[in-house]
Amino acid sequence: MIHAGERLDSQDMSMIEYHDATVRVRYAETDQMGVAYHANYLVWFEVGRVELIRALGIEYTRMEKEDDCHIVVADAHCRYQQSARYDEVLRIRTRIAESRNRIVKFSYEVFRDADGKLLATGETTHIICGTNGRPKLLPAKYQSVFKSVAAPQPDRSEP
Amino acid sequence: MIHAGERLDSQDMSMIEYHDATVRVRYAETDQMGVAYHANYLVWFEVGRVELIRALGIEYTRMEKEDDCHIVVADAHCRYQQSARYDEVLRIRTRIAESRNRIVKFSYEVFRDADGKLLATGETTHIICGTNGRPKLLPAKYQSVFKSVAAPQPDRSEP
Amino acid sequence: MIHAGERLDSQDMSMIEYHDATVRVRYAETDQMGVAYHANYLVWFEVGRVELIRALGIEYTRMEKEDDCHIVVADAHCRYQQSARYDEVLRIRTRIAESRNRIVKFSYEVFRDADGKLLATGETTHIICGTNGRPKLLPAKYQSVFKSVAAPQPDRSEP
Amino acid sequence: MIHAGERLDSQDMSMIEYHDATVRVRYAETDQMGVAYHANYLVWFEVGRVELIRALGIEYTRMEKEDDCHIVVADAHCRYQQSARYDEVLRIRTRIAESRNRIVKFSYEVFRDADGKLLATGETTHIICGTNGRPKLLPAKYQSVFKSVAAPQPDRSEP
Repeated sequence: MIHAGERLDSQDMSMIEYHDATVRVRYAETDQMGVAYHANYLVWFEVGRVELIRALGIEYTRMEKEDDCHIVVADAHCRYQQSARYDEVLRIRTRIAESRNRIVKFSYEVFRDADGKLLATGETTHIICGTNGRPKLLPAKYQSVFKSVAAPQPDRSEP
Repeated sequence: MIHAGERLDSQDMSMIEYHDATVRVRYAETDQMGVAYHANYLVWFEVGRVELIRALGIEYTRMEKEDDCHIVVADAHCRYQQSARYDEVLRIRTRIAESRNRIVKFSYEVFRDADGKLLATGETTHIICGTNGRPKLLPAKYQSVFKSVAAPQPDRSEP
Repeated sequence: MIHAGERLDSQDMSMIEYHDATVRVRYAETDQMGVAYHANYLVWFEVGRVELIRALGIEYTRMEKEDDCHIVVADAHCRYQQSARYDEVLRIRTRIAESRNRIVKFSYEVFRDADGKLLATGETTHIICGTNGRPKLLPAKYQSVFKSVAAPQPDRSEP
Repeated sequence: MIHAGERLDSQDMSMIEYHDATVRVRYAETDQMGVAYHANYLVWFEVGRVELIRALGIEYTRMEKEDDCHIVVADAHCRYQQSARYDEVLRIRTRIAESRNRIVKFSYEVFRDADGKLLATGETTHIICGTNGRPKLLPAKYQSVFKSVAAPQPDRSEP
């Protein structure tokens, strides 16, 4: 199990357990409590998500333009454990928690890069939609990639 | 049971079930899918929260300055049902879901004002902290107000 | 000369000298200096601009959708004189400084509503573009309205 | 004349003509026209500014904390020539245009990294302030660094 800092050859994709993207907290992202404003974590989750799928060899821009395939947020959840501060480098560790025909779930951990402290965790659930806003199937070419790296689901079959 | 569009006299506070605040979706808040970017809902929740406590006669600015009392977000959750679009007026309906000594929970419903359609629901959990970032007790004067309007909790006592 | 707080009848349009829109500074808009982050003024200018043209009877959404007419920012300038702070109500006073076939200029003054103090001034210059990003003529129906309220230009004719 | 991608030894500081920082356009930063919303350029200018002074061996966080020295924006100006789009990598080229006892001016060029196209240019003027919001002198240790890299001013002396 490795993590992806670079785009991998296709044969390696199934080995990505997670992807780490980094962001540096901008002054614009702080608030008057002197910490990063909480809504920004959802923006950083998006950065993590996009970089994860880029590491899998997929450009989200192309998904939108060439396949009319938008990964629309249906649910977002974030738990804040420790504040992020101005100028700190954060590591956004992103996993595909689940990938189904019409739904993709991502999970996130946000670490302060300097000391590895876990600052926040979260999950987002997405529905695949066309430009018209209607749900659609995730094209097979993406689905196979997403499923190959999705966290294994608990076996629900009868013994 | 009434909703508060105005600050109420103290004797009426306990009758507020929720508070409606309105925002109009700004161009800056849209994204290239042509809808309001999902992280903005957390910002609108904050608007709803501040306006609810203002309706209860409390200025959040004063809580921060005079009582060194910050309502820090510990958990935020949003479910998106329908997109908000540019220039639409949204009604953010906010309730205090729970108020305890050190923790306050708010719940939110976001409606499109024009047709009353429910666009999103959410909850945030907050810890009371000082400027030093350490948790502290919510001062009694605020607690009594918050508790008076908090949704009744299910009875957990023995029969 | 009056200012518009409401949409006016068509015969009154030419009498609008400016339009005042109000915004309340959000927590999300503050930074760790304890004041409103400077980039937000451009967002508030946009609010002022949209509300001015709404007061003139024009929905910007319709300009975009029905006339494929986007008012694209080509230049933005802001001078900051005094800080805006959290929860303050700001009055964004917007004027059409100049309206030509392909270009519209707006000017702004941002006042703190509580004491009328001038916090910032600014100007934006806009080019009319289609969805394709190409400049186009501002349709006559908009141009006549914009010109009727544009600040009179200095007479450049020969004496 | 070189540009700084790294922190330099002190003897090299005077040789920095500009500093290039890169940002990738986030989905959150796009608007419904399908391009980066114009106010974000001021945020990117701030990224460029902070990275330039970091390249000069100065941490802005320390300027604020240890020297109570805030670089407050007094004037911001941006000219938009070409749109930046989602996921594009932008190069923010930042220069110190002028450095005086109480005022620092920065200038910016924003390039699309893929083809080197110039998308926008801008300037910001800053006043040095304490936490109390009052103007103060830029401490000598910073001033010498800033002046050493500031663009040469035209000679205003008598002939």
